[in-house]
Amino acid sequence: MSIEQLFYLSDLFGVAVFAITGALMAGRKSMDLFGVLVIAIITALGGGTLRDLILDNHPVSWIRNDLYILVASLSAVGTVLWVRLTRPIHESGLLLADAFGLAVFTVIGTEVALQNQVPNSTAVIMGVMTGVAGGVMRDVICNEIPLIFKKEIYATACIAGSLTFILLRDLGTPHWLDTGIAMLVVLLTRVAALRWGLALPRFHLLDRD
Amino acid sequence: MSIEQLFYLSDLFGVAVFAITGALMAGRKSMDLFGVLVIAIITALGGGTLRDLILDNHPVSWIRNDLYILVASLSAVGTVLWVRLTRPIHESGLLLADAFGLAVFTVIGTEVALQNQVPNSTAVIMGVMTGVAGGVMRDVICNEIPLIFKKEIYATACIAGSLTFILLRDLGTPHWLDTGIAMLVVLLTRVAALRWGLALPRFHLLDRD
Amino acid sequence: MSIEQLFYLSDLFGVAVFAITGALMAGRKSMDLFGVLVIAIITALGGGTLRDLILDNHPVSWIRNDLYILVASLSAVGTVLWVRLTRPIHESGLLLADAFGLAVFTVIGTEVALQNQVPNSTAVIMGVMTGVAGGVMRDVICNEIPLIFKKEIYATACIAGSLTFILLRDLGTPHWLDTGIAMLVVLLTRVAALRWGLALPRFHLLDRD
Repeated sequence: MSIEQLFYLSDLFGVAVFAITGALMAGRKSMDLFGVLVIAIITALGGGTLRDLILDNHPVSWIRNDLYILVASLSAVGTVLWVRLTRPIHESGLLLADAFGLAVFTVIGTEVALQNQVPNSTAVIMGVMTGVAGGVMRDVICNEIPLIFKKEIYATACIAGSLTFILLRDLGTPHWLDTGIAMLVVLLTRVAALRWGLALPRFHLLDRD
Repeated sequence: MSIEQLFYLSDLFGVAVFAITGALMAGRKSMDLFGVLVIAIITALGGGTLRDLILDNHPVSWIRNDLYILVASLSAVGTVLWVRLTRPIHESGLLLADAFGLAVFTVIGTEVALQNQVPNSTAVIMGVMTGVAGGVMRDVICNEIPLIFKKEIYATACIAGSLTFILLRDLGTPHWLDTGIAMLVVLLTRVAALRWGLALPRFHLLDRD
Repeated sequence: MSIEQLFYLSDLFGVAVFAITGALMAGRKSMDLFGVLVIAIITALGGGTLRDLILDNHPVSWIRNDLYILVASLSAVGTVLWVRLTRPIHESGLLLADAFGLAVFTVIGTEVALQNQVPNSTAVIMGVMTGVAGGVMRDVICNEIPLIFKKEIYATACIAGSLTFILLRDLGTPHWLDTGIAMLVVLLTRVAALRWGLALPRFHLLDRD
């Protein structure tokens, strides 16, 4: 298997994991099957879609390749069946898988942006957007304030990974190496944050209205 | 009147009906006149706009033809006046009109997608998106979990109609026939769902946070 | 300094002010530093981005010029530091600055739309969208019904300014003059609305569900 194929598989794995987190959130809101599918698909593909729209990078990935929608849909249906059969949800396994998906999406987003000749700062924003915007859309549609704006380090892991990727690329490392190291940075930052409960400082402002 | 003119009129009728549902929701949130206009326009035109952005199908319909915005605005103002004059809102008439609008939007969305050479599965998604995304935006901006992810069969009617349209098209039926039958499928599915309270199974997941 | 430079500076000033209102809202929701940055950036750049996507006006301004993101980020960080040092927030000064930002964004939005050869009615909508959509996104993500759909005249000031700009342009006034007068119309309408509590009539509809 080539590096490209491995990366494509990782991408689909990320789609599957993000779709599962979407389906679980939809279940917490007691949505019907259609709602579960939509929330799963938006969570999995929303970040990359928003990135492509802003970069004018057409066609959007899932428009021509229906494997993305298929994987997201099957993951959603699988999640519903799993819960119906009263199988336990392995929380820490899911968090680890989510961290892996986040790593893939961040690197893909950064790379797509660089291919569109944007400044490095914009590429970092596109990497973060690809990683987190789907989850933000999921939370907003489900009427929750997005978790990633409050809980332990999440987007910060994307920023670190995206910066690493750009730095290594500028140094001229081979593609499999900068991709691999950048993904590892996201993954390890995220695992460390979960393990030791690391969080960014919060900004509390009393509502005086 | 040609078939094209009839279809265009149906499209404007769908815009008007969707705008009314938007204005009513804005009224339930005690918005001011500007809020009523914006929610009405987003409900009526949001689904088609999102579809065109994702398909890179420019110019977006209402950009060059201001009749769409005009019809949506007049419907919103008319709704406010109607309620101010304490005229009753005919719920079942509105639901029937909404089902008709849903049928038109679904067929238009599917057809526009097919003209952009996407796979059939993407065309179905675009048909559903055109039909329901405006209502989802309305509910999200008004701080409600989208109704169509919870209540009786709605998007499922779009899926059925969109699939029917694609199937008949592949069979080579004349345009007025595949359009008409596909619209009828949406309309009848929706009316049957309302009449007998048909709903998709719900996915309940206890919140253990 | 040329008129163009003055206008560019005004634009950046608008970005800074809108970012501050975003950061303050994020603080009211006790978000972490990343959340504060994201909400500030979306509030400052969301309206113009949506306008550019719908008009297919690429590249989106902040994609190639990272000064926009930088100004928004620094404003957000500055706001957090200011509040941490328990300095008071000068409400009426902020409202005045916000009115100025609204005036700049409205004129820019209208002008960009006209350059894309759309009808005047669409240009007005794009002016209003550029002025208010960032604030709407801020409120929706923060789980609030957008304030501008409820409180005293805000978007109406944009509509007045946008119409003035188009009218003067058609009359052939020099660019610095139509820009200046249109901005003044937004500013004065908004200040008058704040001073005398002017508001559009509200549409109250009892929820009978």
